[in-house]
Amino acid sequence: MKATIFYGPRDIRVKEVPDPKIQNPDEAIVKVTYSCICGSDLWPYRGLVKRDAPSRIGHEFMGVVEEVGPAVKNVRAGDLVVAPFTPVDGTCPECLAGMSSACRNRESWGAGDLDGCQGEKIRVPMADGSLFKIPKDKAPESLMTALLPLSDVLCTGHHAAVSAGVGLGKTVAVVGDGAVGLCAVAASHRLGAKQIILISTHEDRAKIGKQFGATDIVEKREEEAVAAIKKMTGDLGVDCALECVGLPASWKTVFGAVRAGGNIGFVGVPVGVPDIAVRKLLDSNVGVKGGIAPAATYIPQLMPDVLAGKLDVSAVFTKTVALKDIAEGYRAMDERKEIKVLVKP
Amino acid sequence: MKATIFYGPRDIRVKEVPDPKIQNPDEAIVKVTYSCICGSDLWPYRGLVKRDAPSRIGHEFMGVVEEVGPAVKNVRAGDLVVAPFTPVDGTCPECLAGMSSACRNRESWGAGDLDGCQGEKIRVPMADGSLFKIPKDKAPESLMTALLPLSDVLCTGHHAAVSAGVGLGKTVAVVGDGAVGLCAVAASHRLGAKQIILISTHEDRAKIGKQFGATDIVEKREEEAVAAIKKMTGDLGVDCALECVGLPASWKTVFGAVRAGGNIGFVGVPVGVPDIAVRKLLDSNVGVKGGIAPAATYIPQLMPDVLAGKLDVSAVFTKTVALKDIAEGYRAMDERKEIKVLVKP
Repeated sequence: MKATIFYGPRDIRVKEVPDPKIQNPDEAIVKVTYSCICGSDLWPYRGLVKRDAPSRIGHEFMGVVEEVGPAVKNVRAGDLVVAPFTPVDGTCPECLAGMSSACRNRESWGAGDLDGCQGEKIRVPMADGSLFKIPKDKAPESLMTALLPLSDVLCTGHHAAVSAGVGLGKTVAVVGDGAVGLCAVAASHRLGAKQIILISTHEDRAKIGKQFGATDIVEKREEEAVAAIKKMTGDLGVDCALECVGLPASWKTVFGAVRAGGNIGFVGVPVGVPDIAVRKLLDSNVGVKGGIAPAATYIPQLMPDVLAGKLDVSAVFTKTVALKDIAEGYRAMDERKEIKVLVKP
Repeated sequence: MKATIFYGPRDIRVKEVPDPKIQNPDEAIVKVTYSCICGSDLWPYRGLVKRDAPSRIGHEFMGVVEEVGPAVKNVRAGDLVVAPFTPVDGTCPECLAGMSSACRNRESWGAGDLDGCQGEKIRVPMADGSLFKIPKDKAPESLMTALLPLSDVLCTGHHAAVSAGVGLGKTVAVVGDGAVGLCAVAASHRLGAKQIILISTHEDRAKIGKQFGATDIVEKREEEAVAAIKKMTGDLGVDCALECVGLPASWKTVFGAVRAGGNIGFVGVPVGVPDIAVRKLLDSNVGVKGGIAPAATYIPQLMPDVLAGKLDVSAVFTKTVALKDIAEGYRAMDERKEIKVLVKP
């Protein structure tokens, strides 16, 4: 079969590799029908984080089960499935507590001997925890690109909102207009926020934000954005500020935009973000919570709304490439020409 | 009238001072019926924080309104009232958002020309925001010592629980067995926690903790306490860890005791507590929230349960002194002989 291999910064190639085979009784083989390129795939692509090379890559996919090991109970051959962006067991105390991203047996797609998903097939460990069946009769082809974001960006945007306590009647500011920030807008809308302010200086992204439920767009940055948000919220600030970037400037913005007693929900992996003084939290009563989204926990919670057509973030896919042309997709995202690229094997 | 005056570390005296008079139309004069000594009154007493000397002291009281200015609408002469530990306006955006401790016009009892409450009478600025009427027909004398903690410790313990998201079915660990920690136990019990683990190595305090709703007592410290809590929670840790001390060791304990994805609620004013790395929060998905309790927000929420006899933390008062003997009360608390001392003018 064909699979994408990372050879080093800006060197992505599609190569012929052996078909995957079940190695343990709890595994499944899935034929990938859709995958995509994540913002975090760009980190090694840009040389910003080290990654083994050559190595298989890709962690967002859906597909059809081809074969299951004898211990697998939840899915069988022929099932349409979507997977969280890390394999998890679904049975450890953390998984049972709803924090599957802290699973004790969590693995990483494309690490060690695990396949990445940017290929034709993928071997799935801990299949009962790592694959979620999609009812085929409720999932026409037109819904596939709305379902695929369950594997990562939709759950991650949802996690920002949940971590910040977004709920009915809340005011929200979203910092970050990438795929995750836009999904955080959609998640906040779904959770009943009354005001969703998206900071965006890109007309095309702001447009998608509006489509996802943003009530206001702030076309400014940092201090100016904070001043605008204060003004839009009766000189108070927002109840919930969602940090979907991970840089010092975006953290400064969320701390500036949130009201006393409000909450910051963060999902941007922090790069150079200063430590937080407890005294600063004390003085403001601002809560800080976030991290790696428990996608395996959220997928079954969010899937019904996706299937019902009430939660559709497929607009984050601004380009589709065939697997053989995936390098072109990486280039387009690297050059920020596209928000997110869909890959059809 | 007589009032307590702070003359310097370990020098507390009761002196004759002029009776207070209304100076602004929004003020009230209250005859103090009960006040008490706060753990934070001990900071200047011990010389740990600087305080003007001589200065009036005390910030927890209830009493009977003697006179109101012409702009006061919510209370009138003869009303039984309790006050939050800082005067607030009740009308600014932060007060309206439920975060009265961030009130834009917040003042401090005993600071500047404001009276402290450890005296016979007190002048109350912004009386409509700072005094809460207690229905006399529902408040027999026997309930007074259950009502007085609304002024501070009960609201502060409640704030630790609220900040950590304590609710129905949650598991909770409380670090700190002083008056605030014990009130955090009572608040967690009221909010429906299913397991409330109090760390306490003092038999008398543990006994009160049990009376307030603690399901388990851990008679260990730090690493040993964390190990015990993990064991009691199925090798997971608690959903909610309440930090009611403010020292590096107690912070280490709450971070150790909380499960992945759980929440730390803190109300201990931090002394020497290290800054928190965002990466640490990301990796654990642990939320951190806390600060100065919005007592004026909480008093009307909690008072009905106090009046109904369902929320009674009067056991934190382990000693009562007359106003003239208040120095004895300070000494007893300083020597940790008593948890909290009630003062009857």
